[in-house]
Amino acid sequence: MLIKEIRVTPVAFRDPPLLNAAGVHEPWALRTIVEVVTDEGLTGLGETYGDLGHLEKVRATARELLGLDVHSTNEIYARVSASVGEAVTDLHGLTGVATREKSVDRVFSPFEVACLDIRGKAIGRPVSDLLGGSIRSAVPYSAYLFYKWAGHPGEPADRFGAALDPAGLVEQARLLIGEYGFQSIKLKGGVFPPEQEIEATLALRDAFPNHPLRLDPNAMWSPETSIEVGRALSGVLEYLEDPTGDIGPMAEVAAEVPMPLATNMCVVTFEHLPPAIRLGAIGVLLCDHHYWGGLVRSTQLARLCETFGIELSMHSNSHLGISLAAMTHLASTIPNLAHSCDTHTPWQDGQDVVAPGALRFVDGAVPVPTGPGLGIELDRDALAVMHEQYLKCGVTARDDTSYMRRFDPSFSAARPRW
Amino acid sequence: MLIKEIRVTPVAFRDPPLLNAAGVHEPWALRTIVEVVTDEGLTGLGETYGDLGHLEKVRATARELLGLDVHSTNEIYARVSASVGEAVTDLHGLTGVATREKSVDRVFSPFEVACLDIRGKAIGRPVSDLLGGSIRSAVPYSAYLFYKWAGHPGEPADRFGAALDPAGLVEQARLLIGEYGFQSIKLKGGVFPPEQEIEATLALRDAFPNHPLRLDPNAMWSPETSIEVGRALSGVLEYLEDPTGDIGPMAEVAAEVPMPLATNMCVVTFEHLPPAIRLGAIGVLLCDHHYWGGLVRSTQLARLCETFGIELSMHSNSHLGISLAAMTHLASTIPNLAHSCDTHTPWQDGQDVVAPGALRFVDGAVPVPTGPGLGIELDRDALAVMHEQYLKCGVTARDDTSYMRRFDPSFSAARPRW
Repeated sequence: MLIKEIRVTPVAFRDPPLLNAAGVHEPWALRTIVEVVTDEGLTGLGETYGDLGHLEKVRATARELLGLDVHSTNEIYARVSASVGEAVTDLHGLTGVATREKSVDRVFSPFEVACLDIRGKAIGRPVSDLLGGSIRSAVPYSAYLFYKWAGHPGEPADRFGAALDPAGLVEQARLLIGEYGFQSIKLKGGVFPPEQEIEATLALRDAFPNHPLRLDPNAMWSPETSIEVGRALSGVLEYLEDPTGDIGPMAEVAAEVPMPLATNMCVVTFEHLPPAIRLGAIGVLLCDHHYWGGLVRSTQLARLCETFGIELSMHSNSHLGISLAAMTHLASTIPNLAHSCDTHTPWQDGQDVVAPGALRFVDGAVPVPTGPGLGIELDRDALAVMHEQYLKCGVTARDDTSYMRRFDPSFSAARPRW
Repeated sequence: MLIKEIRVTPVAFRDPPLLNAAGVHEPWALRTIVEVVTDEGLTGLGETYGDLGHLEKVRATARELLGLDVHSTNEIYARVSASVGEAVTDLHGLTGVATREKSVDRVFSPFEVACLDIRGKAIGRPVSDLLGGSIRSAVPYSAYLFYKWAGHPGEPADRFGAALDPAGLVEQARLLIGEYGFQSIKLKGGVFPPEQEIEATLALRDAFPNHPLRLDPNAMWSPETSIEVGRALSGVLEYLEDPTGDIGPMAEVAAEVPMPLATNMCVVTFEHLPPAIRLGAIGVLLCDHHYWGGLVRSTQLARLCETFGIELSMHSNSHLGISLAAMTHLASTIPNLAHSCDTHTPWQDGQDVVAPGALRFVDGAVPVPTGPGLGIELDRDALAVMHEQYLKCGVTARDDTSYMRRFDPSFSAARPRW
């Protein structure tokens, strides 16, 4: 089962003006679709970031993998590592610090997922069966709330409307929960002063008393502010995500607040785990196979976290259905994934490169696809359309900050702000 | 690929009078052979301990696994866990403390290996391909030296002869290295006073100046003695294995000796890792899929150790070819397995339940079998003979101490002795 061809296709899709600590989502979000084809004619799918620097690494690496067997994970990883070399690239700053290890893991991930897709297809089994087998038939996701503008400046309002205060967020939550059935809620914060985000969180608590709640200000707070907010939200949050930056300050906060701290920013690669564990910085790790080096390494991460009493949740960037399928297979197999996963799926509002039918939400959870491999099919027409959009949209790397500065030249993404 | 039948067969084979901290090997060593058969007629092999308490757990658990799919690793583990319940059994005391987790992992292991054997056979690929792919085509093993009597009391000398002093050990090393080509040496100590074992180690160093050396007294020394021996052997050992018992004392010793400490006694299950890491007790972990819950969990253990800068080596009890094949597949896939593995294979001197041909030593290393699954075939005639031996030999659990006391009533296995 040798790799004969790898197709790497950047795509763009419409994204609403979601606000975050770095600025605001641009009108177009980017992803890279990876298709690995074997000499036997099987095709596997992977999905990763679309930023140009990363795309170029993925393209360059793809050439180095031709002729390798899809089972030779270690050799593929070694080739990726050699191809990436010492060039460390950071993406948009919302998924933590850049390191060489993280760069390698990030390039490796879509190829690993595609190889697992092929291996599943070859034996007629779902990818979850290659990861230890599903222990849950459906994976619960959370309603991922964002402060947002009604529409991109100069464009009409989108169907989600504005959410710039507690009432707007509650309304947004009602919309997402109504359409998807989500049974927990995550609020992306770091946008307004902490008092306002506390108020919004409490409003969500009142409106949805039985939905576990999380708040994620993307490290926009000082440790002091983090401790104040954490105490103010005692009993309200299942976890507080990345209130402040870096492992040391997170540990300071963790010692003083009543809820566990979660992260996808200060612990984003294996080398960050020893100091984070030594200092007791986190109680929950948001895993993400896109930067933890694929699905199998994520199961290894899960075992490590279980060993050290760290719970797992799952992080999401804007993504399409290949990623949602991979996330769902992975999450279905991890016993200590104790929290519902994050997903941006509602914000893509039906845009996808995956043919309809394989992925759906039932009561906020995605049933694990039972077909061979990832259990999804590429919609080649949609891929072509989205690739055209990529070529025309003019965006080559995510830059929420510059986009925000077009409308608010004084905006700064410097952390901490409060 | 549902499990239709599981055959569990205890076997016994001749074992020489190898001396260790617990006493001396009895004339018969025990193992349990597990055959898992699927509804499609594929058979997978596993091998585990033969002690009666463990055998009964394996037998009882086998009944609980019928009807499960060979891919449903998580579900199989859950069934094993339920079957083992709260009953913690210890084996012979040389592989560390007993815990519930370790009992479950130990019962799970042969079933997991057998399922991987089946999965490999089903797709025509070696088990190593299910573990990330081989990064070495052959796995180096060490010459595992023992102090030993010439033969069992009342029997003629065996072909290995006596080894009760440095000259005897050097001769034994020459024999094993001559026959197998081993390129490193492990001495099982804890038998004679430390001065004698230092002397023996130095004699081996003189005779084999280019062979990395290890010494394993099975925790027979106090921390003070361990530090003295460690300092006396500065520059001589690649690692010192379990000089003293328990994580705290090992950490004390580790801080004072020049070489890394290794263990297969104080860290034998995932729950032991956090304290061992926190205290810096070990530099090398001797993994063993028989008690770390099989091959996939061992790869997860390897990732954890890599994360924390702990090197890996591999532990061995008396075993047959199914275990050697599984150990070799596993070791071939682990990048940070930086030391040659232990094996008792020479002491079995050709006795095996595996048909000849698939496993051999070349320059001290076992080429990774390339056939489907484990790449080995069960020799049913040999299995029947060894099962008959089991029924007749009268040994039902390894007990080196009682056997030693037959000849030396004053013998005590209490630790530390020195």
